[in-house]
Amino acid sequence: MPAAGPTARLRRLGIEACQQPVAYLRGDSAVCKSEGFGSRSRLELWHGGRCVTATLNVLLHGAGLALLEPDEIGLSEAAWRALGAADGAALRLRHAAPPPSFSAVRGKIHGRPFGADAAARIVGDVAAGRYADIELAALVAACSGQRLDAAETAALSSAMVDAGQRLRWDAPVVADKHCVGGLPGNRTTLLVVPIVAACGVLIPKTSSRAITSPAGTADTMETLAPVALDLPALRRVLEREGGCVAWGGTMALSPVDDMLIRVERPLGLDSDGLMVASILSKKVAAGATHVLIDMPVGRTAKVRSPEEAGALARRLSAVARHFGLKLAVQLTDGAQPVGRGIGPALEARDVLAVLRGEPGAPDDLRRRALLLAGGVLELAGRAAPGAGLALAAATLAGGAAWTKFQAICAAQGGMREPPRARYTRAVCAAHAGTVVAVDNRVLARVARLAGAPGAPAAGLEFHAPLGTPVAVGQPLLTLHAESPGELAYALAYAESQDNLVTIAASA
Amino acid sequence: MPAAGPTARLRRLGIEACQQPVAYLRGDSAVCKSEGFGSRSRLELWHGGRCVTATLNVLLHGAGLALLEPDEIGLSEAAWRALGAADGAALRLRHAAPPPSFSAVRGKIHGRPFGADAAARIVGDVAAGRYADIELAALVAACSGQRLDAAETAALSSAMVDAGQRLRWDAPVVADKHCVGGLPGNRTTLLVVPIVAACGVLIPKTSSRAITSPAGTADTMETLAPVALDLPALRRVLEREGGCVAWGGTMALSPVDDMLIRVERPLGLDSDGLMVASILSKKVAAGATHVLIDMPVGRTAKVRSPEEAGALARRLSAVARHFGLKLAVQLTDGAQPVGRGIGPALEARDVLAVLRGEPGAPDDLRRRALLLAGGVLELAGRAAPGAGLALAAATLAGGAAWTKFQAICAAQGGMREPPRARYTRAVCAAHAGTVVAVDNRVLARVARLAGAPGAPAAGLEFHAPLGTPVAVGQPLLTLHAESPGELAYALAYAESQDNLVTIAASA
Repeated sequence: MPAAGPTARLRRLGIEACQQPVAYLRGDSAVCKSEGFGSRSRLELWHGGRCVTATLNVLLHGAGLALLEPDEIGLSEAAWRALGAADGAALRLRHAAPPPSFSAVRGKIHGRPFGADAAARIVGDVAAGRYADIELAALVAACSGQRLDAAETAALSSAMVDAGQRLRWDAPVVADKHCVGGLPGNRTTLLVVPIVAACGVLIPKTSSRAITSPAGTADTMETLAPVALDLPALRRVLEREGGCVAWGGTMALSPVDDMLIRVERPLGLDSDGLMVASILSKKVAAGATHVLIDMPVGRTAKVRSPEEAGALARRLSAVARHFGLKLAVQLTDGAQPVGRGIGPALEARDVLAVLRGEPGAPDDLRRRALLLAGGVLELAGRAAPGAGLALAAATLAGGAAWTKFQAICAAQGGMREPPRARYTRAVCAAHAGTVVAVDNRVLARVARLAGAPGAPAAGLEFHAPLGTPVAVGQPLLTLHAESPGELAYALAYAESQDNLVTIAASA
Repeated sequence: MPAAGPTARLRRLGIEACQQPVAYLRGDSAVCKSEGFGSRSRLELWHGGRCVTATLNVLLHGAGLALLEPDEIGLSEAAWRALGAADGAALRLRHAAPPPSFSAVRGKIHGRPFGADAAARIVGDVAAGRYADIELAALVAACSGQRLDAAETAALSSAMVDAGQRLRWDAPVVADKHCVGGLPGNRTTLLVVPIVAACGVLIPKTSSRAITSPAGTADTMETLAPVALDLPALRRVLEREGGCVAWGGTMALSPVDDMLIRVERPLGLDSDGLMVASILSKKVAAGATHVLIDMPVGRTAKVRSPEEAGALARRLSAVARHFGLKLAVQLTDGAQPVGRGIGPALEARDVLAVLRGEPGAPDDLRRRALLLAGGVLELAGRAAPGAGLALAAATLAGGAAWTKFQAICAAQGGMREPPRARYTRAVCAAHAGTVVAVDNRVLARVARLAGAPGAPAAGLEFHAPLGTPVAVGQPLLTLHAESPGELAYALAYAESQDNLVTIAASA
């Protein structure tokens, strides 16, 4: 904390400024004038040993000016949370220098790879909140599109692990699985975890919320049980049940990854290198020793071709070796969504149907989950090579997985029923024929526009998998939304997209 | 304007939110709930035929919530300016879709060049304010570091010209000059314009404010005369005096360039392609036919080597040909600052000293300006090849340039005296010897930290050009600031930089 410098009294303003730390000062205040704080400044705010870097907004006149007394500094919700101080506390202020590590990002943009030292400094500055959103956006752009090499990726991964908590488990084998994403409805984790745990293999699964998809595993699980577990709670669940599906964010495992995601999501950008660093840093931080990667490959999936899949698998394996992690990659079909629901609650319903063995449960979701669970069981040495699938299938069919899932939900804080959306509306076929193509990306966007994952009940049900014969006016999908505005917005977008579902006239 | 949809009453809040359009809604308002507007939304606000895309901040509780009535929408200053509506006006709101052209930026990040059509759509969306700052940052990062080819650069340049006003002059030869920057204190334009105009060549110079430097030409000129001229005023000045030094921003020549600069500046990023597009789109839009480019080359200048200079000159020439522009490039020495002052008012004083022929006027500034003015006079056909320098020197020495400069200032709205800073402080040599190197970038940063160009009187005076013998304690530079905070900040930074001025012990 700086020993000297201007101070101002904290005032929580109750403004949510896009999750960014924002500080508000009156333009006519002594501190603004004497320090030369202007409307483009970045400020460091100190209280006790804590510091947050905030963007300064200046109150010039009118209702805005009346928000604060001249000796006060207002905080947005994110700034207030980061600082953890009460109204009236004296904050010490100073100009925030641009993050020193950004020169390495600038170098990277100009084609110069960064080394381990620079990676650690970048991650350290991001973790400390010193990067403004435009700096994060430039970092993400610099790393996107195959621009990180293996050494940079490993360096970033290590730095990300070091920047957060690291869990250690008293077991020789700690299993984990991860899907590289891009396939709507692919919610196999909620099936793999109870199957694997029911077979006695430790699987402390921490998941993210949605990145660019309408639902992350954590979002879907949250409609069934609490996921924001702290570390002691996570340990209790694991000790009792041998498995969990928790949100990684609470535990500050690789917190930098979550900060990058906040920018990657609206930009719709992702980078092989950042993705590998993101995945493996979280697995290492979560204490995993054996990791199975589900990699859906399809023209509109995140990984579009076997060649891309091969390159990504090699990158993952190389960085896994760097950490001494046993890793296997399972390529899966990425041509269309999995299951029926897209969106947190709708996907949760699919999962429940499979776990309960309901007639009409989505068979594609069931088969994928068994394939992956079998893979994890083999990788973890619980099943002999070739025998994993049968063991997984028996565990699901016999009800052990459903029992385990309920026990995990109970241990995480109590099982609950996924919500239902207030507004629904069908999107129907304009002509008859057979479904020959589905655009996963457009479908995911429709579900996001309908409100997923922010509104957990929102999203869509998909009725038209490849090969489905459709008649004119037959519903292709049903939109679910929590507000008429979002329903209308999603509908307008869906109806404007020719390639959402491609129907070929029957011969 | 959308025919239907929710509305809210405008309320100007008087908040300057980093020049970004921000809209404020109560989280408990009907419009927020029914439309699913969340804290990460981008909104389109419509009034009459005008539209602004704004980032939404949500008022949740406390003083923030009390800012608005439930049926009101608050606007930041930038949003209010863009919309031009009065308090109480009914604004129509809707979700803003991500700018459609951003997919071409994403493609570029992934290595796919964009064509003329995509360039036009990108520039159109940026001009319409549809890009959020993080999207602008990703665009700048995608284009930085030699990533734009000649075709992309020409396409961007054309699109930038088309997005703004274009001036036409009733003269066969319209001269212009431009410095690619990176050299503190290089304020030759204020000398070249009066010399060239005094020789009867039309030179309607529009300049930018500072990008990454402590002063742009417009910032410096503004300490001597008004520069924010609208088009009729500019025409009057030109008709009367044959030359001007105006700020290009008012005239909306290539407005997209100004929007990119707002992000390039804090990121400290620049791109050859964007720079060429920026320079030439403004020259074409200003109606120039003959353009001389001053390109300082030096280890810490923007252009670091003759190879870089050659590549940039070729790119400039190629795109100039695309527009039918006659262009010449003059390489100049970029090893150290030009003149004594760095910062708007301090540089203006150097210019005045040269124009008035004061004893002690900075000779390096005078010689550079004459070289460039001579080049313009030759390029424009006013002087025979090889005879430009002598004509320029005679025009300056005879007082015609000083007379013309005063006339231009008077025509632009009246000449004035540059301000002086309230606080000054010397930075002194720690050991004796001879100055053997100067880091222009560090020097520029010191001047910026002292407050330039926001505070026009701020910056520094540089006393230690290459070859200067210095004694211990001899001032190397004098900081000028308008606030003690900035003075201290600049001083701390200057004293922490070993390579600001390199002094070799005398043998």
